[in-house]
Amino acid sequence: MAEEEKKDDQQEKSLKDEILEEMTADLKEEIDSPDTAKLQQERDDMEDKYLRAAAEISNMNNRFKKEREQLLKYDGQKLATAILPVLDNLERALQTEVEGDAAESLKKGVEMVYSHLETALKDNHIEEITTEDNKFDPNIHQAVQTVPADADHPANTVVQVLQKGYRLQDRVLRPAMVVVAN
Amino acid sequence: MAEEEKKDDQQEKSLKDEILEEMTADLKEEIDSPDTAKLQQERDDMEDKYLRAAAEISNMNNRFKKEREQLLKYDGQKLATAILPVLDNLERALQTEVEGDAAESLKKGVEMVYSHLETALKDNHIEEITTEDNKFDPNIHQAVQTVPADADHPANTVVQVLQKGYRLQDRVLRPAMVVVAN
Repeated sequence: MAEEEKKDDQQEKSLKDEILEEMTADLKEEIDSPDTAKLQQERDDMEDKYLRAAAEISNMNNRFKKEREQLLKYDGQKLATAILPVLDNLERALQTEVEGDAAESLKKGVEMVYSHLETALKDNHIEEITTEDNKFDPNIHQAVQTVPADADHPANTVVQVLQKGYRLQDRVLRPAMVVVAN
Repeated sequence: MAEEEKKDDQQEKSLKDEILEEMTADLKEEIDSPDTAKLQQERDDMEDKYLRAAAEISNMNNRFKKEREQLLKYDGQKLATAILPVLDNLERALQTEVEGDAAESLKKGVEMVYSHLETALKDNHIEEITTEDNKFDPNIHQAVQTVPADADHPANTVVQVLQKGYRLQDRVLRPAMVVVAN
């Protein structure tokens, strides 16, 4: 009877152990469970999204700063381009030879206007395109006529400027119309 | 003996139960442990940071869109302001009375220049400030002189424009200099 009881007891023990083990396993599983893994995944995903957003903010700032700089740098480009023919026509008008006090006073007035306009343009970074070496450069010159090269005018040099070219900062507003030797 | 064994057995049972209970509690605690709470907190914090960043991106986009629109809307303001005196001086020059073909040709040229400049400005949204009712408005008029009001010129009306005012879009580039009745 005592033997039997012992056996029963052992059976019971091992059953309890089994249950305990099972429960422990279940709970352990729960700890490393989809819940924790899910939380970690969610946190990591969110961190990833946040880091991307932070990078985007930084990119946007740089992009807009550049864009703003460009807009300010070339501010007035459209107006300046529209005003260039005014400068041409003033220049042309000033080539008229006049006589008499009233006419000379008018011409003087126009000269002042011309120089004032030139200054206003220069103050706003709009200047005539000039070259030091007279070399033809398709970036700033538009060849509208060619003449044979000679001793004074080697090939590929500007012989005459028919219409002045202008630039705004480093941007060509319009190329100079030129006669080129070739 | 059998009784004693039973007692032992019961004691053992209750000890095992105790251990089991304790382990269960420990494990349960671990499930709702600082680790899980920490993970949740981290996820929530990160989500909060992400949401703020996303809101900032949206704000930045709106802000820059507006700024860009403003820059483009008032593009050329500085150049236009600098050019207004040129327009004044051309106008003044055109008041010169001249005689003779050459002088008249010069004057015609200047008239064309003036009208060309006006068009270029208008094309770029720069226009003379005008009023329909001649009422003095400090937003667009600068009173440089006053005269007593009379039948033709009620108080607070513009009697004479000494220098034209101009606006770029809805922005006053310079107010008109006027004589006001009072």
